[in-house]
Amino acid sequence: MKQRVGIVGYRGYSGAELVGILIRHPGIEPVLLEHREDGGAPSPIRGAVRLPLAACTPEAAREEQLAAVLLATPADVSMELSAAMLSAGIRVVDLSGAFRLRTTERYRQWYKEEHTQPALLAEAAYGLPEFCRERIPAARLVANPGCYPTAANLAIRPLLEAGVIDRAFGVVCDAKSGVSGAGRKPSLKTSFCEVTENFSAYSILKHRHVPEVLLTSGLEEHEFSFTAHLIPIDRGILETIYFRASGIGSAADLVAVYERRYAGEPFVRLYQPGQVPDLHSVARTNFCDIGVTFDARTGRAVVVSAIDNLVKGAAGQAVQNLNLMLGYPETEALL
Amino acid sequence: MKQRVGIVGYRGYSGAELVGILIRHPGIEPVLLEHREDGGAPSPIRGAVRLPLAACTPEAAREEQLAAVLLATPADVSMELSAAMLSAGIRVVDLSGAFRLRTTERYRQWYKEEHTQPALLAEAAYGLPEFCRERIPAARLVANPGCYPTAANLAIRPLLEAGVIDRAFGVVCDAKSGVSGAGRKPSLKTSFCEVTENFSAYSILKHRHVPEVLLTSGLEEHEFSFTAHLIPIDRGILETIYFRASGIGSAADLVAVYERRYAGEPFVRLYQPGQVPDLHSVARTNFCDIGVTFDARTGRAVVVSAIDNLVKGAAGQAVQNLNLMLGYPETEALL
Amino acid sequence: MKQRVGIVGYRGYSGAELVGILIRHPGIEPVLLEHREDGGAPSPIRGAVRLPLAACTPEAAREEQLAAVLLATPADVSMELSAAMLSAGIRVVDLSGAFRLRTTERYRQWYKEEHTQPALLAEAAYGLPEFCRERIPAARLVANPGCYPTAANLAIRPLLEAGVIDRAFGVVCDAKSGVSGAGRKPSLKTSFCEVTENFSAYSILKHRHVPEVLLTSGLEEHEFSFTAHLIPIDRGILETIYFRASGIGSAADLVAVYERRYAGEPFVRLYQPGQVPDLHSVARTNFCDIGVTFDARTGRAVVVSAIDNLVKGAAGQAVQNLNLMLGYPETEALL
Amino acid sequence: MKQRVGIVGYRGYSGAELVGILIRHPGIEPVLLEHREDGGAPSPIRGAVRLPLAACTPEAAREEQLAAVLLATPADVSMELSAAMLSAGIRVVDLSGAFRLRTTERYRQWYKEEHTQPALLAEAAYGLPEFCRERIPAARLVANPGCYPTAANLAIRPLLEAGVIDRAFGVVCDAKSGVSGAGRKPSLKTSFCEVTENFSAYSILKHRHVPEVLLTSGLEEHEFSFTAHLIPIDRGILETIYFRASGIGSAADLVAVYERRYAGEPFVRLYQPGQVPDLHSVARTNFCDIGVTFDARTGRAVVVSAIDNLVKGAAGQAVQNLNLMLGYPETEALL
Repeated sequence: MKQRVGIVGYRGYSGAELVGILIRHPGIEPVLLEHREDGGAPSPIRGAVRLPLAACTPEAAREEQLAAVLLATPADVSMELSAAMLSAGIRVVDLSGAFRLRTTERYRQWYKEEHTQPALLAEAAYGLPEFCRERIPAARLVANPGCYPTAANLAIRPLLEAGVIDRAFGVVCDAKSGVSGAGRKPSLKTSFCEVTENFSAYSILKHRHVPEVLLTSGLEEHEFSFTAHLIPIDRGILETIYFRASGIGSAADLVAVYERRYAGEPFVRLYQPGQVPDLHSVARTNFCDIGVTFDARTGRAVVVSAIDNLVKGAAGQAVQNLNLMLGYPETEALL
Repeated sequence: MKQRVGIVGYRGYSGAELVGILIRHPGIEPVLLEHREDGGAPSPIRGAVRLPLAACTPEAAREEQLAAVLLATPADVSMELSAAMLSAGIRVVDLSGAFRLRTTERYRQWYKEEHTQPALLAEAAYGLPEFCRERIPAARLVANPGCYPTAANLAIRPLLEAGVIDRAFGVVCDAKSGVSGAGRKPSLKTSFCEVTENFSAYSILKHRHVPEVLLTSGLEEHEFSFTAHLIPIDRGILETIYFRASGIGSAADLVAVYERRYAGEPFVRLYQPGQVPDLHSVARTNFCDIGVTFDARTGRAVVVSAIDNLVKGAAGQAVQNLNLMLGYPETEALL
Repeated sequence: MKQRVGIVGYRGYSGAELVGILIRHPGIEPVLLEHREDGGAPSPIRGAVRLPLAACTPEAAREEQLAAVLLATPADVSMELSAAMLSAGIRVVDLSGAFRLRTTERYRQWYKEEHTQPALLAEAAYGLPEFCRERIPAARLVANPGCYPTAANLAIRPLLEAGVIDRAFGVVCDAKSGVSGAGRKPSLKTSFCEVTENFSAYSILKHRHVPEVLLTSGLEEHEFSFTAHLIPIDRGILETIYFRASGIGSAADLVAVYERRYAGEPFVRLYQPGQVPDLHSVARTNFCDIGVTFDARTGRAVVVSAIDNLVKGAAGQAVQNLNLMLGYPETEALL
Repeated sequence: MKQRVGIVGYRGYSGAELVGILIRHPGIEPVLLEHREDGGAPSPIRGAVRLPLAACTPEAAREEQLAAVLLATPADVSMELSAAMLSAGIRVVDLSGAFRLRTTERYRQWYKEEHTQPALLAEAAYGLPEFCRERIPAARLVANPGCYPTAANLAIRPLLEAGVIDRAFGVVCDAKSGVSGAGRKPSLKTSFCEVTENFSAYSILKHRHVPEVLLTSGLEEHEFSFTAHLIPIDRGILETIYFRASGIGSAADLVAVYERRYAGEPFVRLYQPGQVPDLHSVARTNFCDIGVTFDARTGRAVVVSAIDNLVKGAAGQAVQNLNLMLGYPETEALL
């Protein structure tokens, strides 16, 4: 018998992607939970999909016998709903930034707001399975990683663990994202005529995702430079990561570091030395593709890491976590 | 000495285009008039352009010694401002739909609102110089044509005048526009992710521009089908116009009809028989390009008419009218 | 046990789409057949897909025990390969225009070439299941329909059958397609900088797909005007179809005509009267979505028909035909 | 009386841009020189432009009394034509990479070919007026800078001269370009469907423009990491430049360095501290826009430098050089 899972925020891009994935999941029946914040925005879910609808309350969630809820909501809504759903005994995967930073101080510093659920912040498991798989199956609350940090951490952490990054130089991460990463709420910045035939940098050196990279990768703040950019496309994140390699003679040595770390991982794909992914390689998949280039004369290396921001960077990874929590194969509905 | 001309709505796409054209005009100094509706939207005018700013009131307009104002504002704002500016003795070119339809009944029918300035509606000169050039130089108020009607009327009216359209069949006009035609106010429909890799029809058979085509072309309502579409590009309108030709033996005959009508017209360009324009041909120009295809076996003809919606479809044509009103060569700043 | 099916032309867009569909098919194992024409072009198939490869010869096809081959090849290659494969006892679904027009005269007229396989041309079954489902299961050779005709015929034929089109007026079909419809061979016309921020009409009144619409819809040539346009997007076809309705009082009456005809059809979706599909509605699906608008005052109607040109317009419909030929449920791998 | 200037390669994007600029130049009459390599490609020059045409030979150039020729041709063609034209006494601005690298060794290393005109290579003046203005007026041969190096050198060199870059860390330059930078020759890599909704890195750490940055900026090879990326847009280059600042307390200090260096420069625009340009800011202009962000806690700085690759990165800068050579105001036809 299928387990029922609620989706909040299905009128947004990540929420609609959750629906698109879960309707193909053999063990899960998705239930749309209508939240007051959704307003009158038309659903981005196309076609003849007819799914059960319910109110977005703990009572309705219990009545619908939900095994879990997925929150594709803003951080303040996520804080409130997580507390309510967990109190009703319903497990939560939260796609917002509400529960990723572990301490209220750090949250205040980067999100410029007070955290209203400090106990849950401390309790939440960080949902990057490739590095934190142990805690997820039993977790009540999983903080689904940010899109930029997913691509960055999967690329950087194995190199730091292996000691092949010259830490005096540190790491530069030049990140580019499609527009769906900015959400579905209309704004001048994401209006078609402002974005098409344009390209822009934003949140330079102060993006909210920076502390998430630091926490998981092991880098110190002074070792890391990060800039986000907007690409005039719908979906996809590509990060170009620069460092000086130590104890490494070739791109193949760096690929070997990744191969050791990611042996058996279903969602990380490595490229031949000197080859790198583009965004078509990962579009509409849950893969993170990683490629390496190295210049032996200067010791400088460049790693390119690519994901689909709505899949491995949001909804796909949330389902990956949900599979771990509910006892399905980790790749169910994702390959 | 330069004449000064006010621009209202310069934070919108048509208004910014007016600025871009007028700063190259040797006889005119543009003055930005800050209207309360502009709100906090950042200006789309790029670079180091520094223009005089004034309040958007008749008093300020007089104090600034404006010879005219150009209104790139919504219809309701245009009605109010036109009345106020004209009372202060300042001539007006209005880019909205407020003064194009001649009667209050027709305005009510198509715009679903009451017209608040019936006397001005009756007085306004329609600013399609290729067909209404006589009244413009002396006009106090010019109604700048809509973007779709400009491309449609320039293509259809010469054929009707020449009697080469089979009126039992009528005319089908399939029109496509870039997104800037929808204005700069953020909305879900013009958000990047909704538009990119998409194409959609809207206002099928009931677009507000239909009566403007009927009035100027000479077609009856039952003779005309019109559908608007949104192209995922910034700017440009292409209209594909279908009819059955009568008394015509070839595409060259149709081109000849246009050549006779448009001899000496600076802004209409005709193509060789069988050749048609695309949108790159007219981008950032004040030209209307027209090409003709004809199938002698079936008697069916297709005319393709292309303009830049922000230039010949809005700001460029407004300056063309302004040139006529203020005594400059009609092509000044437009070639 | 899975049946094996060969794919020729997998380096093109339709061929790659065939691969993407068939790797999800529970009853079919795709085998890539390397044709000499594929040259060195890198495969558009992304990710870690590893499929069996074989030579594109009848001998290899027999050795690989192929149940059928899918030809995503140019018409001249399709003629040659179809004959060879059928002689070896292997059934064929051909995605080119080689076998769609039934007579060599018609083929010569529209394709400007001699047909080299007149017997096969006469034998081929036309693979539009919604209208020609009976002959497909037993056919040796299926001519998969063109992309434009699929969207046009599904929209037009039910109306003609029901007698609601005023034939004195005929039908105007204004068709727009994404760039993948032009194939993957590099050309100036499909280069990024020529297409982006552009929109153009082509093959006006003389597109090769016209006779395919006439043959299947039942329209006469003098009753039909067709223009193709290039949209600056990857995939999707939207057709805006104009006619004068007879014996019809509302859009709902026209929707009812479609509902009767398409009851039980899995791949045709109808919209509420006055509602029409856009391309996001059908992207990456095998659906044809149809919506109707009607103006009672003028008797003029507009139907919008939308498909994904690479799915229902090519690879998806080919698999739909293959399912019928090999005894699988018609929707297998397509929903 | 106007001076006549020949344009070779006017069927390419840079050549067409040269035409578009020079037809607005009050002192110059452009003459199109038809080179055998242009083949049958249709001209990208739109509209009714009718320019004098001549053969691309020194004899024809003398007969046409050309004051100079502009070469928008591949490097090998440029070498041959430069020698021929200079022998005939006609001055040359070359837009290819043929004469930028000063020594044949360096040319061989980065362009993987032998240089056939070593004397001219030694003679050529590098045409970045902001840093090499002295030699240009009297030069016979000007090597117009590459697009990436223009944006990079204008951003990096003032900082190196002022000693505010920590050279132990060096400089990371993450560069992104529109597709017109790849030229107009059709290729799979620049085909619409391969580029749209995609983003990719190329020539990582080994782009031919690297030595040009080193030569002009003053950086050593081991101090510099450079990656090029393809943005799915027509035109524009944005470079995100990372370094560790020394002796600097704020972004304002860095802006002040630029302000001192670029006082009076007509084509460099500086942004307020913390503000950076996007590509719409510079599209279709000859400006290089530069903005600075600085994180005092980590000492890390990011500079964003933006140009239009076809204007300041090619044709505009070539006309800037031509103005200096022929005695016109440097900004003529460029503002």
